[in-house]
Amino acid sequence: MKTFNKVLASSVIAGLFLSSMPTSGIQSADAKTNNPNANYHAKISNNNANNKPAVCHGNQKTPKNIIFMIGDGMGPSYNTAHRYMLDNPSTSQMELTSFDHYLLGTQRTIAEDTHENITDSASAATAMSAGVKTYNNAIAVDNDKTEVKTVLERAKEVGKSTGLVATSEVTHATPAAYGAHDESRKNMAAIADDYYNEIINGKHKVDVILGGGRDYFERKDKDLVSAFKKDGYKFVTNKQEMQDAQGQQVLGLFSKGGMPKMIDREATMPSLQDMTQTALNKLSTNKNGFFLMVEGSQIDWAGHANDITGAMSEMQDFDLAFQTAVNYAKNDCNTLVIATADHSTGGFSIGANGVYNWFVDPIKQMKHTPEYLRAQLMKDGANVEEIIKANVGFEITAPEMQAIKDAVAAKDATKIENAIEATVNTRSLTGWTTGGHTGEDVNVYGYGPASSLWRGNIENTDNAKHIFNLIK
Amino acid sequence: MKTFNKVLASSVIAGLFLSSMPTSGIQSADAKTNNPNANYHAKISNNNANNKPAVCHGNQKTPKNIIFMIGDGMGPSYNTAHRYMLDNPSTSQMELTSFDHYLLGTQRTIAEDTHENITDSASAATAMSAGVKTYNNAIAVDNDKTEVKTVLERAKEVGKSTGLVATSEVTHATPAAYGAHDESRKNMAAIADDYYNEIINGKHKVDVILGGGRDYFERKDKDLVSAFKKDGYKFVTNKQEMQDAQGQQVLGLFSKGGMPKMIDREATMPSLQDMTQTALNKLSTNKNGFFLMVEGSQIDWAGHANDITGAMSEMQDFDLAFQTAVNYAKNDCNTLVIATADHSTGGFSIGANGVYNWFVDPIKQMKHTPEYLRAQLMKDGANVEEIIKANVGFEITAPEMQAIKDAVAAKDATKIENAIEATVNTRSLTGWTTGGHTGEDVNVYGYGPASSLWRGNIENTDNAKHIFNLIK
Repeated sequence: MKTFNKVLASSVIAGLFLSSMPTSGIQSADAKTNNPNANYHAKISNNNANNKPAVCHGNQKTPKNIIFMIGDGMGPSYNTAHRYMLDNPSTSQMELTSFDHYLLGTQRTIAEDTHENITDSASAATAMSAGVKTYNNAIAVDNDKTEVKTVLERAKEVGKSTGLVATSEVTHATPAAYGAHDESRKNMAAIADDYYNEIINGKHKVDVILGGGRDYFERKDKDLVSAFKKDGYKFVTNKQEMQDAQGQQVLGLFSKGGMPKMIDREATMPSLQDMTQTALNKLSTNKNGFFLMVEGSQIDWAGHANDITGAMSEMQDFDLAFQTAVNYAKNDCNTLVIATADHSTGGFSIGANGVYNWFVDPIKQMKHTPEYLRAQLMKDGANVEEIIKANVGFEITAPEMQAIKDAVAAKDATKIENAIEATVNTRSLTGWTTGGHTGEDVNVYGYGPASSLWRGNIENTDNAKHIFNLIK
Repeated sequence: MKTFNKVLASSVIAGLFLSSMPTSGIQSADAKTNNPNANYHAKISNNNANNKPAVCHGNQKTPKNIIFMIGDGMGPSYNTAHRYMLDNPSTSQMELTSFDHYLLGTQRTIAEDTHENITDSASAATAMSAGVKTYNNAIAVDNDKTEVKTVLERAKEVGKSTGLVATSEVTHATPAAYGAHDESRKNMAAIADDYYNEIINGKHKVDVILGGGRDYFERKDKDLVSAFKKDGYKFVTNKQEMQDAQGQQVLGLFSKGGMPKMIDREATMPSLQDMTQTALNKLSTNKNGFFLMVEGSQIDWAGHANDITGAMSEMQDFDLAFQTAVNYAKNDCNTLVIATADHSTGGFSIGANGVYNWFVDPIKQMKHTPEYLRAQLMKDGANVEEIIKANVGFEITAPEMQAIKDAVAAKDATKIENAIEATVNTRSLTGWTTGGHTGEDVNVYGYGPASSLWRGNIENTDNAKHIFNLIK
């Protein structure tokens, strides 16, 4: 929409920053750079052409295939913020996100934990994968540390193909709670072992594993990559290899730990959308259908860092993957897609400090996340001013630059990131209350047969309960 | 639910407050006081017995009656927080709120304002009352300041009865946007004039007016109370008078400005539930049906003040009024109830400062809002320690008490409130990012004929569009 994007800065905001911060640092700059945040609305809206009504006929009540998508940390404010980012200033309406077309309701996220009444990702993922409330840190085990069956395991039991896709380590809490069992999310090597060792009907339980975390598969004590390859899996480490890989089973590990965020990712690395598409290509060859879990893992990580640049980058990545899933379902007419979150992160609010505006331009003017820039700034001989000026599209004030330089001189990674994040948060008027999670209900979106089961305000355990009923 | 409420304070929190703040100040105290926040779950759950499935037969598609309820400032975090407050520690589940049973979706709140992309209550209420996006401050006028017809006016045109109920001044932005037209929400006297002067089919357009704001009706320049009485309205100023009043038209003004919050209200003053019940008694005598707008006005005011005590008090008040509306609709089988918000306020998050807990006990241990206590503390000769100890159920630290005393000595009302609020926010781990509004989508709840029109993610203008279609 065009009504407010150009006029506001000088009159409303000038008073806030006074002479120390030129208003040119806040106003809209030309967004024609080639970074994803700058091209936010163009990228998403191209794909939005596919968000047309379904043409699936008949009243299919039980889907053959299920795609369950989790935006880690994607509380309600992230969904609305993503819409602000998508806004095309040259139109009179605010453009919708891909999710907006498919809202079914919200879910309650609370854990059953003796010490904490705000959930972590492990407990929430176990609720969604197994239908069991448990303690924070639990990977598909209950409060007695007994293993609980997951919907992915049920799908494999009945002869479906299965997949796990994430931009974190594929052994991280959320995917782990679908394909492994452990008393602690921290045991990521043991979780990788579970993916290999836990056999259902004589087969490995996860057919397609795509994401980060190579370090947990190629270890000093064990080489799970060789083991998977020996058992027929294709092993791939970049986008091209992934797309060229033949066969139905594939292990793709694209980074040692978590993958870089979309805005920081090199072209050789697959996006969440690329990985989702490859997973669907592989899994859809099974006539019995499939279960696929896709996680937009790092919305949460950006939230923990109070990094709005990274958060919006990861919302884009997740939106595009969701579009791929919905488009698949619309063509297939036999696939249920659910997209939700495990909890919210950071206490992120759209607007802060008493001002009735949230400005997306400063976010779009960032060419990389503060995390990425921090890595560049900590290299020997890095020229701080040069790196900042090349990557931050708004004018940095002298005190802000000094704060970054001081943090670099102190070799304090957190301080460096905080100093860069502060420049974006201040200009965009992004609010944060915590470096941890918060307890708000999260949104639930869906499309396809049986999606109406998800309507209303549900418990996070209902996700698993409904899916168990659908793949009996 | 019982799993986490008792154990946590000493281990998780002790480190946060160190020796300056005894953990006894955070742990659960006996909640058996007679203030509403202390008895939160008992009060609501008694009524929850009525939240049973409907027994309305037939497929009524167009309701005869419409009750539209607005929790001002009730962003998604307020709805979840209300559930935390309702939790009965002696049961194994977390109890649901009255709203949870009726979630239909969410709505987008953005205004069409040249300077601000986060809405105010006037613009949002105009969107909901008239289906027109407009500038902040606008009372049922569009961006050209042309008056736009409201659903209340349409209802009156077709012969229905109409009502406005609020705990703010009844001339405040939200009710005003249903029953008046003005280029600015600030013109509350002119808005009161509109209620009297604007005639539809020879009749005053609002039959039942209940709330605060007597000062705008009894003025030096005009006595609208006498005028309304002359035209047959009963005028009432307390709960008993309101409940005893005969006839179909009533003007009830229970305070000079906004009414006290539920937790601060004297027994002679009606609750939002009482006013809603009275309005329903009056309006339901019209065989053509009615339109009633009910606002939980001060959820927003508490949010602006970053006062979690007041916010939860007002959520209770609004929940009970919603129950009354839904119960009416369930008995009547011909009434649509929609409950939503206009925007969120305060950037309120459930949890803050990196801790994975939100503690309700400190909130329940408050006997009054900080606003109420401030008024007591500013009276001549007030004994600060006595007043605080009598009304704050947890132990206040010496520095906290000193901060309150200093603020009292300085006669600084805002500082006094802030100092008291800080004691609750710190212990409950309530996060805030602003004294203004934020841009997140808000929840939409509903029950009754045609309520399914509200499903999914809607624009705030859709509320009016749907209602106009229903009362053609």
